[in-house]
Amino acid sequence: MRLVTYRANIEAEARLGAIVDGLVVDIARLGAAKGVAMPATMLAFIDLGPQAITIADRLIRECGGLFPLGAAVPAGNVRLLAPIPRPRKNLFGIGLNYTEHVAESAKSLDTSPDLPRQPVIFSKPPTTVIGPGDAIPLDETITRQLDWEVELGAVIGSTAKRVSRAEALSHVFGYTVIVDISARDCRRAGQWIYSKGQDGFAPMGPCIVTADEIPDPQTLDLSLTVNGVEKQRSNTAYMLFKVDELIADISRGITLEPGDIIATGTPAGVGAGMDPPEWLRPGDVIAASVERIGTLRHPVVAAAEIAA
Amino acid sequence: MRLVTYRANIEAEARLGAIVDGLVVDIARLGAAKGVAMPATMLAFIDLGPQAITIADRLIRECGGLFPLGAAVPAGNVRLLAPIPRPRKNLFGIGLNYTEHVAESAKSLDTSPDLPRQPVIFSKPPTTVIGPGDAIPLDETITRQLDWEVELGAVIGSTAKRVSRAEALSHVFGYTVIVDISARDCRRAGQWIYSKGQDGFAPMGPCIVTADEIPDPQTLDLSLTVNGVEKQRSNTAYMLFKVDELIADISRGITLEPGDIIATGTPAGVGAGMDPPEWLRPGDVIAASVERIGTLRHPVVAAAEIAA
Repeated sequence: MRLVTYRANIEAEARLGAIVDGLVVDIARLGAAKGVAMPATMLAFIDLGPQAITIADRLIRECGGLFPLGAAVPAGNVRLLAPIPRPRKNLFGIGLNYTEHVAESAKSLDTSPDLPRQPVIFSKPPTTVIGPGDAIPLDETITRQLDWEVELGAVIGSTAKRVSRAEALSHVFGYTVIVDISARDCRRAGQWIYSKGQDGFAPMGPCIVTADEIPDPQTLDLSLTVNGVEKQRSNTAYMLFKVDELIADISRGITLEPGDIIATGTPAGVGAGMDPPEWLRPGDVIAASVERIGTLRHPVVAAAEIAA
Repeated sequence: MRLVTYRANIEAEARLGAIVDGLVVDIARLGAAKGVAMPATMLAFIDLGPQAITIADRLIRECGGLFPLGAAVPAGNVRLLAPIPRPRKNLFGIGLNYTEHVAESAKSLDTSPDLPRQPVIFSKPPTTVIGPGDAIPLDETITRQLDWEVELGAVIGSTAKRVSRAEALSHVFGYTVIVDISARDCRRAGQWIYSKGQDGFAPMGPCIVTADEIPDPQTLDLSLTVNGVEKQRSNTAYMLFKVDELIADISRGITLEPGDIIATGTPAGVGAGMDPPEWLRPGDVIAASVERIGTLRHPVVAAAEIAA
């Protein structure tokens, strides 16, 4: 199932939808029409556990493509938001999780050329999250080194505390695309939260594909272009620490909860790794794709213009 | 005003209270008795803005020490929780923010001996938060280097985005005590979230003292003992980056929101700085105090015993 958070018009509330044959099906309204109480937001849907997917799937199939009045609109008529517009805690980010990216980072940043022996974890506050098409703010009073990173995002579906690698993927609700925007010159004493945690630094979407449709998350092409020029292209097969290892590792010390989001790291091809380095400028457009999930497109806009 | 979150008994819901002459006054119940709708949780109270403090203060003073039936209980009869038991995002932590602590950290950890030129920011997930008296878990399969850090916590009261140092303190709701528990051997590629972000690593409380009672947060003694032996003693006057600078700095790139919590850094005297280093063991008891706010006492308990 492809799940989105959307607004039917600019003043409407953000609601949970499922993409079905070019339509956005409002799961709560569909449920209401069928006498089944269903949640109207992504987080409430995730909190219900796996049964939510089963029930929503059945409700949709029972319609046979003919949805009750008001329960479906053409996907082109809505505005998509980030699937989880407001996470309940900071996103977990994973650094240095693809071999060649470790090498390129060590060239121009202050990271080690050695492969990490354990996942390198950082975080991005909920205020980093923006939705498909939203402007990525560039505040040149803070940074002159704004960089891109396409990543597979894993969304946790059930509480995971000290889970084994074998059971880890059963705790995944689904997958999304995340761009881990990074202001390379804002690292401080090595800590990354200020460089990766500024407002608007986590474009997310366009949807969450539920885990039942992606049984093996380590088989997905991912790529990123800037102004149509390909900068990153790899496959999640090349992650150093796979999604199941990340969940098992984090959950040893930090309980993962429904709705938590893990940005699983980026492959080679970031701006800091270019010779000479390349940084995002106002007017640039990023397109970030992960196979089977979709593409995010975002313009880079001077922060002063967004605030104005 | 001294505000707490408490349970009247083990099964009761967590509620907002004010400490008045040895009583916990339930602000929502007091309001109800007086015909004034008041929030029942700390975050809802903070969300109301400064008027909430004004109204609650007036309601309490009007009682003249005689509270309506059910609106007040002896403080000794309740269980205090963390004032904000479940923050809406990770806590912001500040590293290396007292001169002598910078020196001791450089001795035994991998940090620079130079004073940071900008605040060093990290984060602690909401799952780190525990309340007064709760056990600090020590999982010896993960860490053999569990350490203490007493800190002044600043709680944000209103949205702060690109605020000046001069206006920064007007965005503070109040202050609390935070212990920034750290597993020194869990740092990874320099990132601190795993070493400082494990479950139970942020004891918080015992109350929030509203900012009107602490007009200058840079005048407060703070100290910490382990098993009654003093390990840390300093004053917030010695912070490198004062609370107003921290808020101004963070808010340049990261919007601060009501209910956000900043743990403002710890003075010298942590276990990693001892010669030889000292680490917490099961059975140890920490007592952490900040002047005018109060004292947190926490036993260290083997994680397996807490889980069992």
